[in-house]
Amino acid sequence: MVLTRQDIPAVPAEARGLFRQGRWTQRTSGLCVGYANANLCIVPRELAFDLLLYCQRNPKPCPVLEVLDPGDPMVKSLANGADIRTDLPQYRVLVRGEVVDEPSDITEYWRDDLVTFLYGCSGTFEGALEGAGIQPRWRQGDESGAGIYRTNIPTIPAGKFRGNLVVSMRPIPSHQVSRAVQVTSRFPSHHGAPVHIGDPAAIGIPDLSQAEWAPGPTIQPGEVPVFWACGVTLQVVAQESKPEFMLTHYPGRMFISDIPSEQQAVL
Amino acid sequence: MVLTRQDIPAVPAEARGLFRQGRWTQRTSGLCVGYANANLCIVPRELAFDLLLYCQRNPKPCPVLEVLDPGDPMVKSLANGADIRTDLPQYRVLVRGEVVDEPSDITEYWRDDLVTFLYGCSGTFEGALEGAGIQPRWRQGDESGAGIYRTNIPTIPAGKFRGNLVVSMRPIPSHQVSRAVQVTSRFPSHHGAPVHIGDPAAIGIPDLSQAEWAPGPTIQPGEVPVFWACGVTLQVVAQESKPEFMLTHYPGRMFISDIPSEQQAVL
Repeated sequence: MVLTRQDIPAVPAEARGLFRQGRWTQRTSGLCVGYANANLCIVPRELAFDLLLYCQRNPKPCPVLEVLDPGDPMVKSLANGADIRTDLPQYRVLVRGEVVDEPSDITEYWRDDLVTFLYGCSGTFEGALEGAGIQPRWRQGDESGAGIYRTNIPTIPAGKFRGNLVVSMRPIPSHQVSRAVQVTSRFPSHHGAPVHIGDPAAIGIPDLSQAEWAPGPTIQPGEVPVFWACGVTLQVVAQESKPEFMLTHYPGRMFISDIPSEQQAVL
Repeated sequence: MVLTRQDIPAVPAEARGLFRQGRWTQRTSGLCVGYANANLCIVPRELAFDLLLYCQRNPKPCPVLEVLDPGDPMVKSLANGADIRTDLPQYRVLVRGEVVDEPSDITEYWRDDLVTFLYGCSGTFEGALEGAGIQPRWRQGDESGAGIYRTNIPTIPAGKFRGNLVVSMRPIPSHQVSRAVQVTSRFPSHHGAPVHIGDPAAIGIPDLSQAEWAPGPTIQPGEVPVFWACGVTLQVVAQESKPEFMLTHYPGRMFISDIPSEQQAVL
């Protein structure tokens, strides 16, 4: 049976079960709304200090939620009994920054020296935006999630890791932009407040209709493009820095945790 | 000329200049109020991943503000032209967890493989507490700063680093306790909201008059002891974990940054 988006259970552990069986390899936006989502990046122990330092220096794109001990694939604080090698819909395998595989399971790539990083994702605050009356476009029958774009904003290097910021874009009606800033400011561990509001060209995006990764929704009259730091930044960093080996989620196919988003919000 | 607390300039760069000359080796509470303070911990590169991971897992006691590249003693984001080896009033040198020296300058201990961690300090929010009408005891003629105590609360280990949480205690009039929670919640990168309010015995502190480090002010009638996570935690962790080599500030003698505290506050 081919599953549709409506068939995915709203309980994260059950949704992860379907991902584990390889029965869902599509994007996760709109699934298990209200639970914290996470980006994934896995590197050898030898690169782990530089990567953790990179995240510490760039908390907007890379807000670290959990780092597992070297060789340990089992998530500890974000979920109960989740194996990071199987429990996401799809992965990317990068060798010296080049994508060499996009499997739905990374068990065959696992090594005893691999260190798993899970870091925040703006999917986490989509439920809160919706609760505040700011509907994501996918609630309005548009199948596109947030658009994801490369900017000209440099991040702060650490060791060999360096590269420009990647952002996610959501069109927001102009009278709701302030509210969107307020709502997302409460989620600093999931990219927090927008990094830019308005003119895409000002941050080096010539054309919103040309997205390198997920294509975004079209801006309608009365809407403003609002940009949040995005976890895909680490994949640009990998292209630029060419680390020997890295495993990541496939953009838009996130780890869905057991933690209600609101538990990760600040005042 | 012997300097008194009143002689210390309110501008951080000038105060650090006196520390650099060795002319002030006393505690920094009440100095340069309104500027972000930081705890200091320096370890060899070999231990740096485990320490950064420990901080990531324990952000209440160890909220990382800045980590310098291996061998680099010059602060980058928190201050302009500050040398971490000279610009604090006093230091501790720990070998396998034992204090072997308490110098006012660590230049002679510097090595090319040392990695400097600066992490948040509750001294940062004392100005904000005062602005909210919650006076620190040292404004009332009592010379004591916050009391610092070891608790029975375990932190989350990382690599060899493990140990119990250390807290700072301030007596707060009971009608101002909620306000103190609100004000300090705005400073998550400086320990944030209290970890405990009230009964010291509940967190393993048998007697507030017996402080292992800084002795705290006496609790007056109508006051509640309020406890915040404290950066001295890493010194307990060192005693427990016995890292080969570690340099820290002397408890209560903090790094004073150029950054106004309010710039590090959240909404």
